[in-house]
Amino acid sequence: MSERIVRTQVGIVGAGPAGLWLAHLLAVAGIDSVVLEKRPRAEIAATHRAGILEQGTVDLMTALGLDARMRAEGYAHHGIELRVAGQARRIDFADLVGRAVQLYPQQEVFSDLADGAAAKGLDVRFEVADVALHDLTGESPSITFTDADGTPTRVVCDFVAGCDGSRGISKRAIPEVLRTDHFREYPFGWFGILVEAEPSAPELIYANSDHGFALISQRTATTQRMYFQCDPTDSPDNWDDERIWDQLDACTAAPGFTLRRGPIFDKTVIPMRSYVCEPLQYGRLFLAGDAGHTVPPTGAKGMNLAAGDVSVLARSLERYYREGEADLLETYTATALSRVWKAQHFSWWMTSMLHTQPGASTFDRRRQLGELDLVTTSRAGSTYLAEAYTGWPLIPTRPGFLDPDTALGNVLASQLTGRETTASRP
Amino acid sequence: MSERIVRTQVGIVGAGPAGLWLAHLLAVAGIDSVVLEKRPRAEIAATHRAGILEQGTVDLMTALGLDARMRAEGYAHHGIELRVAGQARRIDFADLVGRAVQLYPQQEVFSDLADGAAAKGLDVRFEVADVALHDLTGESPSITFTDADGTPTRVVCDFVAGCDGSRGISKRAIPEVLRTDHFREYPFGWFGILVEAEPSAPELIYANSDHGFALISQRTATTQRMYFQCDPTDSPDNWDDERIWDQLDACTAAPGFTLRRGPIFDKTVIPMRSYVCEPLQYGRLFLAGDAGHTVPPTGAKGMNLAAGDVSVLARSLERYYREGEADLLETYTATALSRVWKAQHFSWWMTSMLHTQPGASTFDRRRQLGELDLVTTSRAGSTYLAEAYTGWPLIPTRPGFLDPDTALGNVLASQLTGRETTASRP
Repeated sequence: MSERIVRTQVGIVGAGPAGLWLAHLLAVAGIDSVVLEKRPRAEIAATHRAGILEQGTVDLMTALGLDARMRAEGYAHHGIELRVAGQARRIDFADLVGRAVQLYPQQEVFSDLADGAAAKGLDVRFEVADVALHDLTGESPSITFTDADGTPTRVVCDFVAGCDGSRGISKRAIPEVLRTDHFREYPFGWFGILVEAEPSAPELIYANSDHGFALISQRTATTQRMYFQCDPTDSPDNWDDERIWDQLDACTAAPGFTLRRGPIFDKTVIPMRSYVCEPLQYGRLFLAGDAGHTVPPTGAKGMNLAAGDVSVLARSLERYYREGEADLLETYTATALSRVWKAQHFSWWMTSMLHTQPGASTFDRRRQLGELDLVTTSRAGSTYLAEAYTGWPLIPTRPGFLDPDTALGNVLASQLTGRETTASRP
Repeated sequence: MSERIVRTQVGIVGAGPAGLWLAHLLAVAGIDSVVLEKRPRAEIAATHRAGILEQGTVDLMTALGLDARMRAEGYAHHGIELRVAGQARRIDFADLVGRAVQLYPQQEVFSDLADGAAAKGLDVRFEVADVALHDLTGESPSITFTDADGTPTRVVCDFVAGCDGSRGISKRAIPEVLRTDHFREYPFGWFGILVEAEPSAPELIYANSDHGFALISQRTATTQRMYFQCDPTDSPDNWDDERIWDQLDACTAAPGFTLRRGPIFDKTVIPMRSYVCEPLQYGRLFLAGDAGHTVPPTGAKGMNLAAGDVSVLARSLERYYREGEADLLETYTATALSRVWKAQHFSWWMTSMLHTQPGASTFDRRRQLGELDLVTTSRAGSTYLAEAYTGWPLIPTRPGFLDPDTALGNVLASQLTGRETTASRP
């Protein structure tokens, strides 16, 4: 069968939030793209992942006109609870930084982005196979794949955006000799469950206890997500429901608190890893989101980092096409990684501060309690945490980065107001 | 020779800052003490140690009427510089928290305290030998020693204060079975030098570089103290002056900066350790200062922690003698350690954030740079650091801890105003 040729400006590999956000932002800037995704749409929409959107991410959805369902079905969270040995230490985002985060599951963000892409006529192709990247260092790179209908196809483009997640092919297209893989593995994992139950608390509870770390989070009015620290090599098979509830109860015990139980319909062990690929670019290939870096889930930064990357990348591509300057593309890695390394530190910090370290000495444990005491009793310390949790600007705030007269400039600048824009299900 | 008996209320072992401050505070409260010190006064006065007084410590000296020389010869420091890969990131204490610290060498604090004790007729005995503690769990503990004139002597007292530093005997009087030694050793030490030179900078420079950590600090107009990170097993013999200056230059290199050289008259390798003894009390023995805990010098907390301990202990003893209540004595460990663990965390944090960790991965190094970026670009982050560096209140601020109608209450409350009270040499 002969190869079908598709021409576009930006070929995007991966239709997760990173790839779809990028396609939307490029469309705002009048730049064509084709998005290629190997998984079926229904499979992605059914995969439970992250659940917390920074305020800037909420603003991005709003500026793209994709916020209706997020506002109707999501929940504004104006703080988190750090539960230290059974004692509540609330970090009050509203009071400390006048901002909030939004509870809204990643798969719903995906569905909204995919629906919006279809409504806007963006070219998003699911269930493609055999994706391969070509001529990334030349003037005209291309992506070959087998389309869902079986047709061998080649997207010929100016740029390739690698948005295909931590196991994607894009990152590996950067030759190892040019790439530094900054990596850290933690000596514990998260045992995650999905539960049919009402929420046990209105906000996330990050519990630090002598029994280990646990996170009580929510997803919807009837589905909850809970985690507890485990051995990274542990298997869900080792944990029956009773043992799971006992462990969660032990980690979260506090006066007057009852963890609501319900049928557990999913059990997984999640490894805890930090990773950054440097550089995030190679010739005309640019990595964004999990394709370029992963964070441990403590601190809920993963999806939000993708929003930052693609905002920078979309503006850099707009500058190239509209103003004829490649300067922002050339500095994409430095610009994007400046925000990524802050988030890597924050995720590492939250992880280190809240988990029980295997082999920790009594000094280590008491120091950790001293730190939790210091952070939660200092308004400055709590503000520092709240700033990071609610999120930094998605794009550099330096003068000249955005052109306020363009449609894209307007969209990206919308999240710099600092006003709280989250909303709760009525 | 028959034993001479001396009766007092509080027997104090050690005439460093902790022991002498305690004797002064007890005198304010009308409580008698005897201070025993094995070293000659001139030797202590000639030993170079720490150099930074938190504002609360300055206030304590002021309230004791011992601040004249400190103000005439010391220097107010309104900030520190974090130098990250040659770039200055000043933490502006004055702007962030409206407070400051005072550069004034510990041996000068000691001399002022010793002179003040002599002027007030306090019983401070130097060059005693064979100090031993007795009957600590009974009603009438005692301390035996050989006085400077060779007379075997016994101080019979109500309470014993162990202020004899990290190598003292007091801590070991707590049976091992009742004591937890919280300990951490760092995989690096500090190579410290004393230099005859003018200051290279008006404030302390904490330099983080790819060559390791260095601290450029001052002592007087003509004597400077400088440190760089080294192997903890290294020997001063391995470092000639030229190699020392080369290393300091490499760690502190920055545009427009010149490190002023001069004759090096002291070289030492200082181990980096964190230690907390728990409990800080055993029967009628109470530990204060280095006798109960040590911190690595990053963050300049050591001497200031002693000021906190003895403030709490003096108030607890005043309550016992004046109000007939032992409640504050009974909770001394918890009260004192609450502040100590915050300082342990801060000292660990400054150490971890600023030093090169042996075996650090590229992830670890970049995360560290991400943290330095985050702390120094966030006003909240910088404030959190400045609060800790300039120091927390020496005593609990909870209502009822101090009696404002007593002389001691007035002295200890003086440091709760929050006003800046440091001063520079005219």
